[in-house]
Amino acid sequence: MFPVPEPMRRALDAARDAALAGEVPVGAVVVKDGVIIAVGANAPRALCDPTAHAEIQAIRAAALALGSDRLEGCDLWVTLEPCAMCAGAIAHARISRLYYGAADAKGGAVEHGPRFFGQPTCHHRPDIYAGIAETEAAGILREFFASRR
Amino acid sequence: MFPVPEPMRRALDAARDAALAGEVPVGAVVVKDGVIIAVGANAPRALCDPTAHAEIQAIRAAALALGSDRLEGCDLWVTLEPCAMCAGAIAHARISRLYYGAADAKGGAVEHGPRFFGQPTCHHRPDIYAGIAETEAAGILREFFASRR
Repeated sequence: MFPVPEPMRRALDAARDAALAGEVPVGAVVVKDGVIIAVGANAPRALCDPTAHAEIQAIRAAALALGSDRLEGCDLWVTLEPCAMCAGAIAHARISRLYYGAADAKGGAVEHGPRFFGQPTCHHRPDIYAGIAETEAAGILREFFASRR
Repeated sequence: MFPVPEPMRRALDAARDAALAGEVPVGAVVVKDGVIIAVGANAPRALCDPTAHAEIQAIRAAALALGSDRLEGCDLWVTLEPCAMCAGAIAHARISRLYYGAADAKGGAVEHGPRFFGQPTCHHRPDIYAGIAETEAAGILREFFASRR
């Protein structure tokens, strides 16, 4: 078996941290020139912020770190297929490559629902790589929801 | 002519403030029980935050003020048709009613592009009222872009 790439490993760790905090376990990181420059964990409840998905947290931190609202040349790694909000943010941030883990048939907006990046009005489309460590990413989510029943 | 409702008036003022700051002029407010509880102006450049659209700014401020990531019973007024990112945030926040001004054929995601709230996977759909003070809202945008040419 091939090892999980380091950025996805870090995103999975962030997802586990979210679970420990009682949040739906999704994690994300932003990478520039091979270096992780931001990590985000899903935290809408703790932060009282409905927009605080892992991707948004990582993108906001990366943009602040770089001093620009454009993350050109940056990659986003996230454990779950992004929703419409996050897909829109990825386009606004001009993320170059999107790597994600588990697909999300209910809330995903990349290969499900609005299929945002395939819309003719989408002004920026990253290269997209899906299914990275998807079993582990989906397992963390499944375990979280099972423990709450 | 009917007067522009007070929340849209405030959103238009916020859009003008954004223009003065050199940002694409879009403004938004959140209303609860007839009271404006948050105002947001588009500010991605000033804040180095690609997610800092007017709607996101207003939603985040309102959620923080209410101490909850759910804005149930709250209305959002915004001068421009929301993009996919903002439409997703509106759904996550459980906004009850969405009132907007100008349509946005290029970036809008309500009546254009992904038509987010019409997707079967959309988990929350506000009541939607479009075209409120649309001439004024569109005029502020047109004037901003004309002045930059």
